[in-house]
Amino acid sequence: MTPSAPANLALPQPYLLFLGDITDAEYAKTAFGLRDWARERCVGEYACAGTTVTTGLPFLTPVEATAKGARALVIGVANEGGFIADAWMPALLSALEAGLDIISGMHTRLADIAPLEAAAAHNGRRLIDVRRPPQNIPIANGRKRSGKRLLTVGTDCAIGKKYTALALTRAFLARGIATHFRATGQTGILIAGGGIPIDAVVADFAAGAAETLSPDAADDHWDIIEGQGSLLHPAYSGVSLALLHGSQPDVVVICHEPGRDRILGVPGYSLSTVDEMMELALRLGRRTNPSIRCAGVSLNTAHLDADSAERLLAQETERLRLAVADPMRGGAAFERLVEACITA
Amino acid sequence: MTPSAPANLALPQPYLLFLGDITDAEYAKTAFGLRDWARERCVGEYACAGTTVTTGLPFLTPVEATAKGARALVIGVANEGGFIADAWMPALLSALEAGLDIISGMHTRLADIAPLEAAAAHNGRRLIDVRRPPQNIPIANGRKRSGKRLLTVGTDCAIGKKYTALALTRAFLARGIATHFRATGQTGILIAGGGIPIDAVVADFAAGAAETLSPDAADDHWDIIEGQGSLLHPAYSGVSLALLHGSQPDVVVICHEPGRDRILGVPGYSLSTVDEMMELALRLGRRTNPSIRCAGVSLNTAHLDADSAERLLAQETERLRLAVADPMRGGAAFERLVEACITA
Repeated sequence: MTPSAPANLALPQPYLLFLGDITDAEYAKTAFGLRDWARERCVGEYACAGTTVTTGLPFLTPVEATAKGARALVIGVANEGGFIADAWMPALLSALEAGLDIISGMHTRLADIAPLEAAAAHNGRRLIDVRRPPQNIPIANGRKRSGKRLLTVGTDCAIGKKYTALALTRAFLARGIATHFRATGQTGILIAGGGIPIDAVVADFAAGAAETLSPDAADDHWDIIEGQGSLLHPAYSGVSLALLHGSQPDVVVICHEPGRDRILGVPGYSLSTVDEMMELALRLGRRTNPSIRCAGVSLNTAHLDADSAERLLAQETERLRLAVADPMRGGAAFERLVEACITA
Repeated sequence: MTPSAPANLALPQPYLLFLGDITDAEYAKTAFGLRDWARERCVGEYACAGTTVTTGLPFLTPVEATAKGARALVIGVANEGGFIADAWMPALLSALEAGLDIISGMHTRLADIAPLEAAAAHNGRRLIDVRRPPQNIPIANGRKRSGKRLLTVGTDCAIGKKYTALALTRAFLARGIATHFRATGQTGILIAGGGIPIDAVVADFAAGAAETLSPDAADDHWDIIEGQGSLLHPAYSGVSLALLHGSQPDVVVICHEPGRDRILGVPGYSLSTVDEMMELALRLGRRTNPSIRCAGVSLNTAHLDADSAERLLAQETERLRLAVADPMRGGAAFERLVEACITA
């Protein structure tokens, strides 16, 4: 089941996932996200020679993927700066020649790369940039909107904010609660088929984009909003604060990875604690929603065995006196987190 | 004397200041800024019929201004959303016909307005958008840069951050200290002849833009950086936080207007206190510069008589145990603020 979202994009499907030439799994979160949350729409993966990261899906050339029904190659890499590497060009050109469209969530626009533009025109294929924000985003007005909102808030990038939001959306829907997943990044948009790439919006309009993303709704309707960056990230804190203020969340869930003690990709920056991030998010979030509360904590325990993870979740639940769960492990802890989100 | 800045723009001068059709002086801060800080480059002002705001400079038609040597009409309005109103078009077209270029700091790009583009081409004039950020801004890397930095931090927009930075720059230069004024908004860029329009940068790159704006410098060199927005502004907080983190200020000066108790243009939002903003700026700023300190407070007392202003500055100096001054009034209080900025 894929959580629903406004259908402001109609992407060609199914996808062939492209991993570029990466050797660090942290940069494959787009591909992993599609595998985990939209697997029925992924026929396989493709990559340059030398790539060491895999989604576990079958490796298919563009010609093989087309034969299996694929309609688009999705760039499944989220590197720093969001650029399309020169080394990927032969692979991308071969996809267009094989009859696939290309979908990208990178900062660099496909249409700005002359050889791709020419090859797409020659082969009658489309170049689709999901990171391109909609036109006419307004300046934020700070007006309190109706309906309920939840925002996932992280201590770093790539720490579980999107997965947590997707898992909570599934759980809310499973309980019969009217809920929308609101995507703010390229992978979320690919999964949901809609959303606004908040970090690609001009800075003055970022909070306005967040307001637009979760419009007025019925009093018992929930918008579950994918967080971005971190309020203490030296490069992305501005995006995170604009998203927090524009989202006006009633509930935040703090997302963290126990054991990660450094900001990813920014030498010299330690990670904030869960406690510090919770206090900061509530303090700043109160500005646009005075009744904001923290429902609990989502811990990414992928690197722990089941027993260690369970012990840690229990310890943190006790220490913080809040619901603490790993949504990817589910179980009673996650049910308690869902309950804590719903029940004020 | 105009504070120096990197000459990455070479604007046609002198200017004719254009006030559009506004009736609220708060929206004329661009025109007022040029009058106050680059008066020798302004021949007069021009406006649509019905405009009630004036800079006090002589009213000149574009033809009259051209005869007095003007080379460009500068749009001196900073409205919400940064759009060019349809009502201004006859005035703008008459400027091009009179032989003036048009310089704009609005979000809307002059070149995107077809009749202006056509008239500029027909008359051989230029349309110059100073709000267009430079290409290839990097993602912030958080690396501590050499040299000293001061950032003005405000409790609201249009509260004195730019004026404070300009006044401090003049005072530093008058003391023989190597200093650059770093402009982050359209007016500052027009005054300085360089800078980066931080709020026009794509959100992901805003902190990177702030890093680029004040590069490594000699240990005793000061960059005095024009603040933007407010960390508690529901629309612009993200811009302010990106600027704070990217600027890595050693010193902040809090800018406030006593008596203003509401955020300008955003109904329902009270202004934070000086104390609250100081504490928040130091707490968040510590992330990229652990030795950040607040040197004092700049109060905009334009609405008070001289005695009331002096009393208030003395009271606040006593209450906060910090240097508190109104840079526009200068005097001993401002000298103490300058000293407090320089002396750790």
